Amino acid sequence: MKILALESSAVSASVALTEDEKLVAQSFQNCGLTHSRTLLPMAEALLQNCGVTLDDVDAIAVAHGPGSFTGVRIGVATVKGLALGTDKPCIGVSTLEAMAHGARALGGRLCCVMDARAGQVYNALFEVREGQIYRLCDNRAIKLTDLGEEIGEAPYFLVGDGAELCYNTLKETCNSLRLAPSELRYPTGYGVAAAALPLLRAGKSCTPQELDAFYLRRPQAERERMKRLSGNA
Amino acid sequence: MKILALESSAVSASVALTEDEKLVAQSFQNCGLTHSRTLLPMAEALLQNCGVTLDDVDAIAVAHGPGSFTGVRIGVATVKGLALGTDKPCIGVSTLEAMAHGARALGGRLCCVMDARAGQVYNALFEVREGQIYRLCDNRAIKLTDLGEEIGEAPYFLVGDGAELCYNTLKETCNSLRLAPSELRYPTGYGVAAAALPLLRAGKSCTPQELDAFYLRRPQAERERMKRLSGNA
Repeated sequence: MKILALESSAVSASVALTEDEKLVAQSFQNCGLTHSRTLLPMAEALLQNCGVTLDDVDAIAVAHGPGSFTGVRIGVATVKGLALGTDKPCIGVSTLEAMAHGARALGGRLCCVMDARAGQVYNALFEVREGQIYRLCDNRAIKLTDLGEEIGEAPYFLVGDGAELCYNTLKETCNSLRLAPSELRYPTGYGVAAAALPLLRAGKSCTPQELDAFYLRRPQAERERMKRLSGNA
Repeated sequence: MKILALESSAVSASVALTEDEKLVAQSFQNCGLTHSRTLLPMAEALLQNCGVTLDDVDAIAVAHGPGSFTGVRIGVATVKGLALGTDKPCIGVSTLEAMAHGARALGGRLCCVMDARAGQVYNALFEVREGQIYRLCDNRAIKLTDLGEEIGEAPYFLVGDGAELCYNTLKETCNSLRLAPSELRYPTGYGVAAAALPLLRAGKSCTPQELDAFYLRRPQAERERMKRLSGNA
């Protein structure tokens, strides 16, 4: 089964084409340019360079959150557009779970973290056994200090665009924390496709209309509006 | 230091842009199309999508062999062309060593193998300690059966386009051999850049004119010609 997978939920952007478990092609970039400019050209160049069209793929997958509000929205909107035009099923996967799949070669325990600002990270914990990913907790927005207390002395690789922040904040108290090597630290299209494959095989795809972004917190503008309203009440 | 790195020595092709130890962007494809058609467009699209020009990079690196005669020649010729036009230094790195750098996240011992046909593989053995690569033997063309005897029961991850061939041939006798996961099995531009960085820092670059392919065996046509000549003598 061929999957085209897009990832744009954080600072990096990536597109991958897989066939079953095999990585056929992947583009990745982490150069600070806006995903709204780079994601679609990356996908088009990748398919063209492989001699593959959208008609040839079985599903289009995307990391649907948590993550940057704008980044997630760009990924989901791009996949909706591509899928609507070609009548392809969609698969939304957890950004944090996709990250764990992309970093599974590290083995052991993975702490996936995205910078959620205001002293928080979006986080989930995973364990890799025999190349398979096992989830240890739900996706959550958590204070760095609370995460540090939970991890304690347990050995975890930090993965994600919040990895350095987390490492620098917690390394004194969590002695067995390690940074994933830089080439596996950021989310990739491959990770999204690997997380999507079992869902596709189980028939758990959706229509482009049903595909949606998945946020753990309300957007900052909404949070500030609610704060203002409750203050005025 | 920015390095543009190209890899086309086997079945896959890859281009990466790095800044010091950081992977800025990478394209990878393993879809069977000829590198002469895909490599240069991949490099151009990658740079353009990052808003970087060749003038911005400090050196251009390439996996200069061992590997497919044509593949290595395409990579080296492309880098010579890019470097000549922009007056940039070049760095040729061992294909097998670049592979080890790309797969260092696996840790432990790495057996890098490329299918050299006729029952042989191009091979070198490496060990990863604390994310650093240590070479255990020179690059060589070796019979699969001889490699199996040398490895014995030692735990090695198989990396490279010869990994499956090697695994299927030796798994009965070498019980601790494991296939690298598919997403880290094939050589990447990142691996080339990671192998080139210490050389660039040590001033060990060369001119485009000096850059050359590095083969462990003569091309098949030459081997057959020599056989014919010695038979006629």
